This record gives sequence, C-alpha cells and structure tokens, in this order.
Amino acid sequence: MSTPTIYPITIHEHDTDYTHRASISTIIGGVLNVAGFDANAKGLGVSELNKDALTWVLSRFSIELSYLPKVFDELQISTWIGDYNRLLSTRNFTITDSSGSVMGGAVSQWCMLDTTLRRAVDLTPLHKNYSEFVLRDLPSPIDRPRKAPSCEAQFTHCHKASYSDIDFNKHVNSLRYLDLMLDMLPLSLIEQSGAIRVDLQYISECIHGDLMTVNYTQQENRAIFDIIRNGSASAVKCMIEWL
Amino acid sequence: MSTPTIYPITIHEHDTDYTHRASISTIIGGVLNVAGFDANAKGLGVSELNKDALTWVLSRFSIELSYLPKVFDELQISTWIGDYNRLLSTRNFTITDSSGSVMGGAVSQWCMLDTTLRRAVDLTPLHKNYSEFVLRDLPSPIDRPRKAPSCEAQFTHCHKASYSDIDFNKHVNSLRYLDLMLDMLPLSLIEQSGAIRVDLQYISECIHGDLMTVNYTQQENRAIFDIIRNGSASAVKCMIEWL
Repeated sequence: MSTPTIYPITIHEHDTDYTHRASISTIIGGVLNVAGFDANAKGLGVSELNKDALTWVLSRFSIELSYLPKVFDELQISTWIGDYNRLLSTRNFTITDSSGSVMGGAVSQWCMLDTTLRRAVDLTPLHKNYSEFVLRDLPSPIDRPRKAPSCEAQFTHCHKASYSDIDFNKHVNSLRYLDLMLDMLPLSLIEQSGAIRVDLQYISECIHGDLMTVNYTQQENRAIFDIIRNGSASAVKCMIEWL
Repeated sequence: MSTPTIYPITIHEHDTDYTHRASISTIIGGVLNVAGFDANAKGLGVSELNKDALTWVLSRFSIELSYLPKVFDELQISTWIGDYNRLLSTRNFTITDSSGSVMGGAVSQWCMLDTTLRRAVDLTPLHKNYSEFVLRDLPSPIDRPRKAPSCEAQFTHCHKASYSDIDFNKHVNSLRYLDLMLDMLPLSLIEQSGAIRVDLQYISECIHGDLMTVNYTQQENRAIFDIIRNGSASAVKCMIEWL
C-alpha cells in the first residue's frame, strides 16, 4: 500500500519578503513543486505526460497556514493522492514545522490538459497506474477548495500577460495570478500575523499577450479577487481569509 | 587556503519557460542563490550582516552561457570570492554540465548597504574575516561586467513597483528588473539558441510604489535596456548579447 511522501524544505532568504517571513507565494510554490516531484517520482509527472501531448494543470487549490514561517525555518511537506475521478485528481498536503507540529494543510485538484486542443481530458484511462497510489482512507487535512463569492470590484488593476508570467505549460503560471492579486492588498494585510486561508479557482487559462483585469474587493477579514481575461470571462477567482 | 565551493543544481520543470529550457532568470537566480548559500556558510551572509543593520546588494553582474539548459539537466555551480576593495566585493562562478564541460561563467560585484541610511558602506573593516576566503590567483572566468551603452528607447513600458517585486532587502529584487526587461523582447529572441551574455548594472534602488519606466532598444544582436526610477534617474542598465 502506498504511503504519503515527505519532502523537506528550508526557507531561504530569497524565499522571504520584506517582513522577513516566507511569502504566501513561496509557500504555495513549495507545495506545488512537491506535487511535481512526487508525480515525477511515481511516473505520473508532466515530463511523462508531455510525451502524449498531455500535462497537469491546477484547477482548484486551498491552503491554511497557522503562520508564515521565517528565514531558516525547516519544514516538511507530506503529500498523497487522495482521490480522483473522470475530471479531477485530488492531491493533499500537510506541512509540519521542525518541532513536528502541523502548521499547515493544503488540498489541490488537478485536471489533465491536452496541450494541442487546450482542453481537459478524461482521467479514467490512467486507472491502472494511478489507483495504487490513491490513499482514500486518509482525509484531506482542511476543507476542500471553496468558491470565492462574486467580486464587486472596489479596486482594479490591468496587466498584459508577458514572457515572465508564462510557464512551461505555455500559459500564465498559477503563482503569477496570485502575485498579481497579492500586489493589490494594502501592506497592512501583508504584514498581518496569525492564520490565513487561501482558496484559488483556475477557471480558464490566460496566454501570452492576454489582457488580465484583476478585480479586488475587501469584505472585513476576506479579500475577494476575480481576474478577467480579455474583458470577457473569469480566468481565476480567489479568496484570502485572515482567520 | 580557501578553495571554490561547489553547489549542485537540477533544472526542474518549474524552472523552465515555454521553450522547455531554463529561463535566463532561472539560471541567474540559481547563481545568486549560490552566492547567498556560500556567504552564509562562511559567516558573511545577509542574516549575519542584518544583525548590524547591513546587507549585501548586487551592484554589477555579468554572465555568459553557451546554451540554456533543459529540464532535468544537472549542473554544478562553483563559486569563490575573487577580490574586494573598499566599495565592492567580487564573486566569481563557473557553471559545469553533467559531462564536466564548463557551459557558463559569471562575475558579480556586491556592495554593502546600511539598511537604515540606505547607502553603501566601507568594506575594509571586514578584512579579518574576509581575506582568508579571497582567491586572487583564480581569475574571473569571463570579462568583468561591462557598462551598457546609452539607450535611445525604441520601446517603453511602465510598471509600478509592487509587493511581489520587493525582496527581503525592501527594494525591487534584482531578478524582477531582469524579468521586466525580458518581457519586452520579441519572442523570436527568447527562442534563440546559442550563446548569450548578460551585463547588469544596478545603479540605484527602486522601492515599493516607485514608477519604473523600462526603456528598450535593439541594436543588431544586442538588446539595450535602461530602467528609470520615477522619471528621473537610471535605476538599472542592462545589455543582452546573442553571441
């Protein structure tokens, strides 16, 4: 039977922001990298899928952190595939600090993209290789990704998707959307200590040259975002809550 | 006697761009991270300096690469302090591929910043701790950083320095300036194979909220950039040459 895989990560200076703590982006980046490492180690990674013109893309993601770690903190990220169906594969994570205390948890849901047609494909043909790694008995450590409520924009920022925003999947990287949203927050919210939850929904992809309109509204302890692609439909929705 | 220190790096999927090669930013980021690791290991790192309200900031940087490595390539970065004077410390790098061939070299020049006064300080008081690590007999692997010629802007892009641009030193991160410049290049230049040289001069720092005007001109095989801070003086100059 499969067991969760554990990856150590150290917070380096270049992972920290001006508050001298790891930024939310750094932590989510670390978690997503671990997803990549583990998928590759199991022969289910992007490089393997690319041979068949397929790739993994993040569909929904949620994370809860008790606090943002500081420089030289050593964490362990434990990950396992929790479930999958025709459309989505769910991968879970717990984050443990050096004293062994769980300081965070995350749930990610992935779909498989046909890189030629740019559309999601059925995951069921994976069954043989996949099912042995699924740990259905180990529940997700936090509530699954929630939908952000609709966003009546109080603030708006426009950005044209450029080379440095685009990743190996030829679309805007999951973390760049988040950075564009974090950039709209007042610094007083960036500087908050205490627990935080982030929910991200990736609805449609932005590609090089697209105009991204980032809408933001603050409702008490919740920041709500909606990134619109080329003035028409939502590309990414997000909710950040200070708990 | 001190010897160069060697750090292994692997190119992961998240390090690659849409051409499925490591981006120039990734490689320079890897080199700068190695500088940080080595300085920390020698007790001369940012965390040590921060105790005295000091930090290292990059002043000039040049790199030559025979090619951009691809996913899963394993490189070794060798680094040593080549020299220092009152104002600047020079750190050199060679980059070797898995077959042992040198595929790149870099030279970085650093000054020490007083984080309260935001100005450079004299490096000579470091002498006792520093001189034992200096390898004056080992020459820099490539020509030292060159000044970019003046830039008559053919293209201009404006960007307001935001949270995700700012690093632990409370100013725009060295790599973000580079990304803003790379974002202006036509994709045909991003897709070029073959050798490349980048020269960067960090003249004055941009901080949160600053307006950065990125000026770009292409002169045959050279891209020349000048980033102006708040419409007044140069913050960063850069020249990229396809060799």
